[in-house]
Amino acid sequence: MNEALQPIEETDAVVVGAGPVGLFAVFELGMLRLRCRVVDALEAIGGQLVALYPTKPIYDIPGIPKLLAADLVARLAEQARPFAPGYHLNATVERLERRADGRWTVVLSGGQGIAAPVVVIAAGAGAFGPNRPPLAGIEAYEGKSVFYLVKRAEDFAGKRVVIAGGGDSAADWAVALAEVAAKVMVVHRRPKFRCAPESEARMRALAESGRIEMVIPYQLDALEGANGRLARVVVKTLDGEARALEADALLPFFGLAGDLGPIARWGIAMDGTAIKVDPATCATNLPGVFAIGDVAAYPGKLKLILTGFAEAALAAHAAFAVANPGRALHFEYSTTTGVPAI
Amino acid sequence: MNEALQPIEETDAVVVGAGPVGLFAVFELGMLRLRCRVVDALEAIGGQLVALYPTKPIYDIPGIPKLLAADLVARLAEQARPFAPGYHLNATVERLERRADGRWTVVLSGGQGIAAPVVVIAAGAGAFGPNRPPLAGIEAYEGKSVFYLVKRAEDFAGKRVVIAGGGDSAADWAVALAEVAAKVMVVHRRPKFRCAPESEARMRALAESGRIEMVIPYQLDALEGANGRLARVVVKTLDGEARALEADALLPFFGLAGDLGPIARWGIAMDGTAIKVDPATCATNLPGVFAIGDVAAYPGKLKLILTGFAEAALAAHAAFAVANPGRALHFEYSTTTGVPAI
Repeated sequence: MNEALQPIEETDAVVVGAGPVGLFAVFELGMLRLRCRVVDALEAIGGQLVALYPTKPIYDIPGIPKLLAADLVARLAEQARPFAPGYHLNATVERLERRADGRWTVVLSGGQGIAAPVVVIAAGAGAFGPNRPPLAGIEAYEGKSVFYLVKRAEDFAGKRVVIAGGGDSAADWAVALAEVAAKVMVVHRRPKFRCAPESEARMRALAESGRIEMVIPYQLDALEGANGRLARVVVKTLDGEARALEADALLPFFGLAGDLGPIARWGIAMDGTAIKVDPATCATNLPGVFAIGDVAAYPGKLKLILTGFAEAALAAHAAFAVANPGRALHFEYSTTTGVPAI
Repeated sequence: MNEALQPIEETDAVVVGAGPVGLFAVFELGMLRLRCRVVDALEAIGGQLVALYPTKPIYDIPGIPKLLAADLVARLAEQARPFAPGYHLNATVERLERRADGRWTVVLSGGQGIAAPVVVIAAGAGAFGPNRPPLAGIEAYEGKSVFYLVKRAEDFAGKRVVIAGGGDSAADWAVALAEVAAKVMVVHRRPKFRCAPESEARMRALAESGRIEMVIPYQLDALEGANGRLARVVVKTLDGEARALEADALLPFFGLAGDLGPIARWGIAMDGTAIKVDPATCATNLPGVFAIGDVAAYPGKLKLILTGFAEAALAAHAAFAVANPGRALHFEYSTTTGVPAI
């Protein structure tokens, strides 16, 4: 036992990752009366759906012909809510310790310990963080005038905003902020964008009407300002021609970098950067530890959200046996049981 | 070749079964630009959801905390609609014939032939029909005053209706018809019902207030009437005590009997009453023939609708390779592609 460990809380299952598949795992575990704690490295639930493409439509969720990624997260959170999961956000799992009683102690980055017989890893591409542009001194501006995530468009009301990148986040936020910002400039190194055609069309229409300035082909070169307060963003062409953009904020949208981080050191059998599981149960090589969603690998695996949902059901049924040794699971349909109190 | 075969139509995939999983298979195949024909033995799409429990809520469809079974069918049909599937209802597949060009000819009960490289069996519990009560002469009343399915409650407006059974269909229709019928009598052989507690509570409340008469513990014994027109339903206790219920209609709700029927004779490798598949692709032992949903068996299989959805995606991806030999499938997310025209 680690002396520094904070008092240990107990639950039935720790779900690592609060993306769509982790949230649905809370529901499936809850239907079998297993209580959960959910840990995520990001500051909000939703995983990639919220961090990468909240305003993008998804078409292949069964029974929902079209919905926005952020709305799917809201619906999954609502579906999980009856089971009152505890969320530990801005936290990573540092390590798993096997306890004498056969359960796991899940040790969080803050030192907190959670004891549970079951761990379900739904870590997607890993505990991911933003790709930072290589600009000298950028750390001093982060959280003050440089942001990798936008929480509310209104935070940029009346401001001059530089958006850098050529993907969905760049195009979507350019369109959204054009409504409220004093000025929106989009810096991209080439004319072609790799975002949804519909988003690009809307951005270009706003550029036509002067609501957005397209700064192309330029790349970020330097930041000017003081005390975390941005004054100018300097951009350059490949030929070295420079421009200084007067700006109050910079939003670099260069994607997220996946990093399984500590998970890769837990002693779990991997298949490249994914976790090997038994496709019949989603069990890993560690007893009571399951992996589902994009992080789980087995023959034929399709990295679709709807595949992760089915894996969540499989893992929950297998987890029931771990958490209730010797107790038979009476298989029932939700239409018969309703949603049980927990 | 069978001389009697009607002219053959061509498509990319024949989906056998228009339940929720078959409908979602149309969507998944359509996203990969494979056109479908859908065959079902029932007269309407929806499979068991519509035939057995249309007005029951389902709680475990990911992203939809609660919806009625019939509404799920409507949403799945809407999601499949852009791909304009052809529906062949009231039809069963009599046999599969391997063609010289490697495709299948799917021969329907009416003699019609459909040629396709891919067959996806989503037959659920099979081409099911109602369990008929063993009453002498019942055939003469069927479709006139004895019904195994209710299409519209209004069809029974002002009528005296006997409902027999103790499951969800019996309770739900007793509640629904109490609104419009002149009289509703529920015949069940024992006090205990095996339906959702909520449905039972509503039925019993209506019985309390005199809107429903509970005829318990009785079983159906005989029908009296003439020319298909019912006059009385005779019921008896186990002790032989009889009552004659004046009635215009009888609705026997004793469930559906699954019958894989001809499928079991197609040469497909079975596992009991289910079809053995490779869990990585949902492929059966016949080339180009896949099985998904409740009818498909593999280690760890959970008979959940959401599991069938994931299997539909797997089968569609594997079917693409069959329908487009030698062409690589560029894996893309729906949020990038949108819904393609087909």
